[in-house]
Amino acid sequence: MIIQLHKNIQPTDLQIICKTLEENKYSVTTVNTQFENYLVCIGKTDIDIRIIGHLKGVKDIHRVSDNYKLVSSKWKTENTKINLGDSVIIGDGEPAMMAGPCSIESEEQVSKIVAHLLKNNIKIMRGGVYKPRSSPYAFRGMGIEGLKMMYAQCKQHKIKIITEVMQASQINDMMEYVDIFQVGARNSQNYNLLDALGEIDKPIMIKRGISGTIEELLNSAEYIFSKGNEKLLLCERGIRTFETMYRNTFDINAIQILKDKSHLPVIADPSHGIGIREYVPKLALASLMAGADGVIYEVHEKPEEALSDGQQTLNFIESERLIEKIQLLKAIL
Amino acid sequence: MIIQLHKNIQPTDLQIICKTLEENKYSVTTVNTQFENYLVCIGKTDIDIRIIGHLKGVKDIHRVSDNYKLVSSKWKTENTKINLGDSVIIGDGEPAMMAGPCSIESEEQVSKIVAHLLKNNIKIMRGGVYKPRSSPYAFRGMGIEGLKMMYAQCKQHKIKIITEVMQASQINDMMEYVDIFQVGARNSQNYNLLDALGEIDKPIMIKRGISGTIEELLNSAEYIFSKGNEKLLLCERGIRTFETMYRNTFDINAIQILKDKSHLPVIADPSHGIGIREYVPKLALASLMAGADGVIYEVHEKPEEALSDGQQTLNFIESERLIEKIQLLKAIL
Amino acid sequence: MIIQLHKNIQPTDLQIICKTLEENKYSVTTVNTQFENYLVCIGKTDIDIRIIGHLKGVKDIHRVSDNYKLVSSKWKTENTKINLGDSVIIGDGEPAMMAGPCSIESEEQVSKIVAHLLKNNIKIMRGGVYKPRSSPYAFRGMGIEGLKMMYAQCKQHKIKIITEVMQASQINDMMEYVDIFQVGARNSQNYNLLDALGEIDKPIMIKRGISGTIEELLNSAEYIFSKGNEKLLLCERGIRTFETMYRNTFDINAIQILKDKSHLPVIADPSHGIGIREYVPKLALASLMAGADGVIYEVHEKPEEALSDGQQTLNFIESERLIEKIQLLKAIL
Amino acid sequence: MIIQLHKNIQPTDLQIICKTLEENKYSVTTVNTQFENYLVCIGKTDIDIRIIGHLKGVKDIHRVSDNYKLVSSKWKTENTKINLGDSVIIGDGEPAMMAGPCSIESEEQVSKIVAHLLKNNIKIMRGGVYKPRSSPYAFRGMGIEGLKMMYAQCKQHKIKIITEVMQASQINDMMEYVDIFQVGARNSQNYNLLDALGEIDKPIMIKRGISGTIEELLNSAEYIFSKGNEKLLLCERGIRTFETMYRNTFDINAIQILKDKSHLPVIADPSHGIGIREYVPKLALASLMAGADGVIYEVHEKPEEALSDGQQTLNFIESERLIEKIQLLKAIL
Repeated sequence: MIIQLHKNIQPTDLQIICKTLEENKYSVTTVNTQFENYLVCIGKTDIDIRIIGHLKGVKDIHRVSDNYKLVSSKWKTENTKINLGDSVIIGDGEPAMMAGPCSIESEEQVSKIVAHLLKNNIKIMRGGVYKPRSSPYAFRGMGIEGLKMMYAQCKQHKIKIITEVMQASQINDMMEYVDIFQVGARNSQNYNLLDALGEIDKPIMIKRGISGTIEELLNSAEYIFSKGNEKLLLCERGIRTFETMYRNTFDINAIQILKDKSHLPVIADPSHGIGIREYVPKLALASLMAGADGVIYEVHEKPEEALSDGQQTLNFIESERLIEKIQLLKAIL
Repeated sequence: MIIQLHKNIQPTDLQIICKTLEENKYSVTTVNTQFENYLVCIGKTDIDIRIIGHLKGVKDIHRVSDNYKLVSSKWKTENTKINLGDSVIIGDGEPAMMAGPCSIESEEQVSKIVAHLLKNNIKIMRGGVYKPRSSPYAFRGMGIEGLKMMYAQCKQHKIKIITEVMQASQINDMMEYVDIFQVGARNSQNYNLLDALGEIDKPIMIKRGISGTIEELLNSAEYIFSKGNEKLLLCERGIRTFETMYRNTFDINAIQILKDKSHLPVIADPSHGIGIREYVPKLALASLMAGADGVIYEVHEKPEEALSDGQQTLNFIESERLIEKIQLLKAIL
Repeated sequence: MIIQLHKNIQPTDLQIICKTLEENKYSVTTVNTQFENYLVCIGKTDIDIRIIGHLKGVKDIHRVSDNYKLVSSKWKTENTKINLGDSVIIGDGEPAMMAGPCSIESEEQVSKIVAHLLKNNIKIMRGGVYKPRSSPYAFRGMGIEGLKMMYAQCKQHKIKIITEVMQASQINDMMEYVDIFQVGARNSQNYNLLDALGEIDKPIMIKRGISGTIEELLNSAEYIFSKGNEKLLLCERGIRTFETMYRNTFDINAIQILKDKSHLPVIADPSHGIGIREYVPKLALASLMAGADGVIYEVHEKPEEALSDGQQTLNFIESERLIEKIQLLKAIL
Repeated sequence: MIIQLHKNIQPTDLQIICKTLEENKYSVTTVNTQFENYLVCIGKTDIDIRIIGHLKGVKDIHRVSDNYKLVSSKWKTENTKINLGDSVIIGDGEPAMMAGPCSIESEEQVSKIVAHLLKNNIKIMRGGVYKPRSSPYAFRGMGIEGLKMMYAQCKQHKIKIITEVMQASQINDMMEYVDIFQVGARNSQNYNLLDALGEIDKPIMIKRGISGTIEELLNSAEYIFSKGNEKLLLCERGIRTFETMYRNTFDINAIQILKDKSHLPVIADPSHGIGIREYVPKLALASLMAGADGVIYEVHEKPEEALSDGQQTLNFIESERLIEKIQLLKAIL
């Protein structure tokens, strides 16, 4: 059960509500976000919501049968939009495009990609500076210096930045330079990181775990929301299956289900999803067709020279053709 | 290695070719299909193909490094088209639509569906009469009588029929009434059935196994081709993964890979793929966007009353809207 | 619901029972096996079983909530034993050992293996003559001649034979030479084959499908039982997962669950289960520790020269050591 | 390639070695652990190791073709033993037993479990105080106070403590009270946590990820080792598959492979592995039979009242019987 409270609720009124709930054997979590104040109430027995409904300070009450509550579409039927400023909005019906290299490598690399984004009217740049790599000996990213390098050029052109954060202790340093924090697939259930991201006022895009269920992804989003941050995006990036012909099994099925179960925008990541460059563009188009609110993909001037993920990265020409096709697709969507 | 032979090759010339190959430690399989005569040659050592190339009766030679040979795009770069007669062709660029009920239930049911197909210009009807069911106590289909019932009405309107065959002993009886034999997911590696289907001259659509790899699907197609039947279609119908929010994980990734590795047409089955009715249409559209040559889906006048698979079956209105959207999509494809 | 009938039930009494059930909206399947006559009754509503219990001809009634009925331990709490004659019994507490080559290759090969079995007191020989192979160009077994070759030597020494049957049409020819028919993983849901095996009086060992669920395996066994054959064994042989370090993921968890849900004996196949020779013996021992009624494994005089599956086949010394360890283990079991 | 260095190597000698390696296009990582100094060298080209072998300061050189290096059995053929003091050693041939509740709940609970451990001669207690839970509203553990509570009683009786650490910032506070830090399945690829654990001198047990490959687990161990901590244990705890009859698919196959590929001890966690109480004991025994160096399992006075994981937790009687059977098993192992 979710109870929306009046913003200016009196502490004594809040106490009465909580007491009533506890008397009915509900455990109560207070959630204050950028926008609203909520109580999330978990209990085993049914309760006549009119008992609560008439109490002072209560704005609205919703029963939510899902395990996740605040991210559920059962209470918030309107789709969430994420406004990044400068008229860059995700979830408003227009496909949101995010593109850039797997890893930030150099100023020159960034400037070439920025030029490519500008030319193709892509408003959000991706670029990793903290890279989770399965081997400790692999290139692990340029760190905060890479982020500043990226920021310097993006800011100038009002390009928004999405980049991965790997642990809570990085958040503060990154805060100024980031428009969307990305939680990677391997950290999709790193609950301490999720808790920490719930306490800041920046959009967070959570990737589904490598073999994360749809429900686990929604629960991970619930972690952040329940700590106070409503600005959330979900990302489908492929799951692990028995098939070995591609890197991951991009789960296009998840897109519709996430859109249905939750009010949060859903972004498709076909680059990691299938992991093979020549198949990325059609997968991007198919994802939009299936209802995704946007696409994040990897692009590099010379993918074959990229420090990581080159095999799944588009070059500028391929990226340009994809953007052209998305323009055509918009007419149908 | 695949050797294409001249149709009128002399037996003695063939003997010489085979002898040369065996001297080079190649095992040779003779394949005579509706269209061509081939030798499929498997060996461990490399061979100078010029030794073979100049022999009498040899039309062409192709090295094929894949495990599967005849279905590989490595030797046949042109896409295979399946001509069902009456201008119904699969693989010619137009999305091939196949629709109908999970199970044939009655004459009345068939006539309503036939009317729906005619209205929406759908040329191929699906309808199961032999139903593989996990429980022996479930409805297992009307059998040959159901097929005749279906045929009577389809023939009249030049609607083509695709239906599942479950064992070799059914083929003869079904032959007259079927335009495409379907091999179901559970029989995807039923090699005796595949062998038998290789010996007839009717198109065969092979579904990927419940957890079949892409390579296994291609090898199953190879079984049929190598017994003499080139008229093959591949079908992606969802694979088994850990996710439980839907029936199967429709593997959209497989579409592009199958199209790339093989010259055979690829059909998407979103009904079984995701198994939830409201998600089927977008998945159908996404599949075409990803490159599928056609879509097979379940439709029923009253899905909630269908004898099987009702939860994944579209009603007539939903089906009609899907067909309309596919018309729009064609402009982009 | 399962109703056990008196052997000498009068047709009119049977009619009355069936009529009563149908009046209560139960569908009834008549099952006459080697040992008993049953009615399997499927209905949605609860029924007061006393209405049936007092009818003439009824021996016993059991509610069974599982989807599978006759193979469930909910009605038959005593473990099923399979008696192969000559005091070879499976499921009597002693680990049943089945060993032999992947494929029967020659008389000499058979005689060496028979000698090995005799030396180690192994009473059941495995040996494939119909081989399901993913490629049509691979060695597909010696067929019925191989089986006769095997039989000639086994009969002499009272060694029992288990071998795979791939399609219904092979059953008759094989019948004389086989003690246990094996249904392979790829045919685990080949329902026509299962139906046919339900009509004979020979033990059947059904392997779990490559990605078959435990419930599907039990339902496949139900197919055979419900056609009249109670002599059934279940076999865990590894499932398909994302892990690539071994051939299959031998699912040791399934052993206890199968033993718990069903009254049928459970055989472990560690050779296919893990697919790597040096790991087979410990897996065999672990399976027995987990409750398996027996083990089937591959052995060959020279595994490296075997026509199939050599990489997972024990040589005679390895096999001998395994048997010795199983002797030690018996003290604990 | 791993180069073992003399402890008292001169900086100039080290420089020469590194320079030589870099000239041969090898990247070099310096690793100084509790016991040894190493250089881990990654390069694409082969190198004549004699060039390095004769350099001053070099103790030994090993080629290691695996992606992981320091944890590989290719260079260290002797099994690693973990000495916890007070004669508690893991990996010395005796099965190491670790038991305790999922979560620490109260002093009384701890004292009952400690009594149970003492009675059964179990030397290591498990008990969670930081609990990763998929829902933010679930009980998340008592935190550091729970650990202190556990420590107070364990210290007195020389029982060693294993407990999960969830993020780097918890390490310092926990350090004094912990004998083995456990990295949970969800954090198996939390590289920042692994890095931090590499910098302390305490044994670390890393659980395989929920769908982690065996190779990923070894790479995660490599992270810790390469930061300086050699005291490592690996834990198999079940993987995620399509089967739904149990919580996870305990992968008994992984035990032998991990023992083979690595020199680190391998612990089996059958409680999480199968997730169903009545099946845990046999799985524990089977794991030891398969070669595990120890078993970690959940035990609670009243599992049905446990705050978490009650359904997979043994009660004291079940635990006692398991220990008795393990005593019997030791004779064979």
